[in-house]
Formats: sequence, C-alpha cells, structure tokens
Amino acid sequence: MIEKGLLIVLSGPSGVGKGTVRKEIFSQPDTAFEYSISMTTRLPRDGEVDGVDYFFKSREEFETLIEQGKLLEYAEFVGNYYGTPVDYVRETLDAGKDVFLEIEVQGAQQVREKFPEGLLIFLAPPSLSELESRITNRGTESSELIRRRMQAAKEEIELMDLYDYVVENDHVTAATSRINAIVIAEHCRRERVSVRYKKMLEAE
Amino acid sequence: MIEKGLLIVLSGPSGVGKGTVRKEIFSQPDTAFEYSISMTTRLPRDGEVDGVDYFFKSREEFETLIEQGKLLEYAEFVGNYYGTPVDYVRETLDAGKDVFLEIEVQGAQQVREKFPEGLLIFLAPPSLSELESRITNRGTESSELIRRRMQAAKEEIELMDLYDYVVENDHVTAATSRINAIVIAEHCRRERVSVRYKKMLEAE
Repeated sequence: MIEKGLLIVLSGPSGVGKGTVRKEIFSQPDTAFEYSISMTTRLPRDGEVDGVDYFFKSREEFETLIEQGKLLEYAEFVGNYYGTPVDYVRETLDAGKDVFLEIEVQGAQQVREKFPEGLLIFLAPPSLSELESRITNRGTESSELIRRRMQAAKEEIELMDLYDYVVENDHVTAATSRINAIVIAEHCRRERVSVRYKKMLEAE
Repeated sequence: MIEKGLLIVLSGPSGVGKGTVRKEIFSQPDTAFEYSISMTTRLPRDGEVDGVDYFFKSREEFETLIEQGKLLEYAEFVGNYYGTPVDYVRETLDAGKDVFLEIEVQGAQQVREKFPEGLLIFLAPPSLSELESRITNRGTESSELIRRRMQAAKEEIELMDLYDYVVENDHVTAATSRINAIVIAEHCRRERVSVRYKKMLEAE
C-alpha cells in the first residue's frame, strides 16, 4: 500500500527567482522531491541529454501530445514549446514520490485545471512586503513612485488567488525552508493520514 | 496593521506524550509560541506561582467563568477543574502572537466548536503505524492480539476526524519539527498572506 506523492508546483511572476529557489532545493543532499523533466521542441545545447535535461521532441510530436492531452501544462516561448509530460508525473506520484515542478504562471493555471489536487506555491517578490512596510511606515518616496509600485503589487496579488501557499522570496534559503515546511505539513494533513490508516484497517 | 496569531492546539489519546512534546517545543530557544496558561481549582503546589504556572481560582470563581463563557475549553479531573481562559488567548492572538495549547481530546472538541479557526493537531501513537506495517508485512503475532490492537487503532483513528493535522509521535524531536513545519506552512497559506497584502492596498 503506497501513499501517493504530492505534486508541488512552484510558480510566480517572472524575475522573482523561481529557478534559483528550485536549484537550491535540489542541491540539498536529502531532498525528497523528484524533479519533473520538461519536454521541449528547442534543439539540445552542448552537453544536454535527452531524458535528463529535457525530453527533446519535434514540433510535430509535441503538437500530437498536446492534442492527446499528454501535457499537464505547456507554453510557447520564442518559437519553441515547453511543457510537462503528464504520464511521467502520474507515474512518479503513483510510486509514492513527491514531484516538483517549476513553471510560469500560465502553466500553473493549467495545472490547477487538470490536476486540482496539486499543491500550488506562489513565490512572491520581497518588494511586496517592502512596499507594505513603506506604506505602513510612511516613507519619503514620491507619491508617483508609490502609485506605480502599488499598481504592480495589485497585479501580483491578483495572481496569488489561484495558489494554496505564498512564499516570500526574501532570501533563497529562507524561501527554500518554507517550501520544505509546507511539504512536511501537507504530508501531515489529517485527510491524507487518516485515509491511509483507514485503508490499513479495511485491508485486514 | 498586525496579523492575528494562530491558535495551535496539540491533543491526542492519553499517554501519547503530549506533555513531552510540548516541553520540547518550549525548550527551543527560538520558539515563537506563547504558552497558554491554564486555569485550575486545584491548590498551588510548592513553588507554583499564580499567573505563571496556572491561574488559581476557587471552585465558585471557576463555575462563574464557565457560565459567562470565559473558558475556551475546560474539564474536570479528580475533583478539580482545569481550563483555558478565552480572554488571554484572544488578547495574545490579537497581539499577533501564536498561542500553543496542549489539551485532552474532549477539550479539543470544545475548541473546534468555539474557535473553528484553531489549528488542531492530533498527536498519534507510533503503535498505529507499527500496526500498519505489521499488517502489511504479515507478522507472526496471534490473531487475537492483532484484533485487539486493531480495535484500539479504530478508536484512535475515529478521534482524528476532528483535526487538521496528524503528527506521529515516533520520536519527540521528529514530532516537534513536524509541528514547527505545520505552523510555518500555515503562516504561508494564501488566504492569510493575500488578505494581509490586500489590506495594505486598501489602507492606502
């Protein structure tokens, strides 16, 4: 009786530092996550290995997989497709391993629709809480600057509404340890644990 | 603008080690929790200080507080009342501090009714997962012993249903770090964080 893994999706506004946090998480020697390998139509760069860095596919193959619903999420950037193969994710979760995805906000929206039980974590820029403390402490900035920043903050906060958790990226190690805490906590959720125990009793 | 603290309630079957885990949590030099001081009608023991170890009250005072709804939860043990004064809890939460309560399962039920936003953590005996692995691995124990253990396990699992999280007390430091992770994660919940940011924008 294997307990299914969690799908952990890290996303957030571009430039917030998702890639840096993801690298930090996978540099931990005791990381318990499986990294989901993306699929792409761009050509391999020197040293990149198919099935390790990416699954490399032709445009035709990729579009066939889209039609067959074989991508958990995908997007097109500068003429190339990038996406997450759903079979790999499902197989890894079924094997009881947590899968970690780092994707753009549009992708996170697709995951929410196709895989509602996914754990969506929004990586928030520290500028938000900086703005908060500046407003609270009445700084000396020009009102035009504050106004522009507030507009940007509003857009970021609206993006959050889709997510389960918000982690501020004030520092990469702090953000990483919050993400680890979230995953530990999710494994302790009563619905998860009691279902496991109840199955054990039924199995007898 | 102060963010309200969390009410963290640790409970579980008697004998599971709630007190030991609570002591471990409060022995951490960087613990961020306020311990909720209980109220009791029993007499102070040598060295116990009113307002530090307990709030000591007469039976009459205690019963008046019950009638006035001033107790978040209470119970009677061997002729004495023990309870949690609700005003102290609310004031501490309003000051933005997390309050930690360690109580019996009947008390946890009262907290769920009176304070639904409380975070209820069930401390589970390791015997449950031991039982699970024994059943799974088909041990050599007598079926009568397994049957009795399964009956006890059923009762414990039914108690869980009230709780938000289940933490196995396999080892006191492991249980403590899971509880700390749960509290960190709860502070990152999107509802909490985005409400804070939205209030900041509205306040402008």
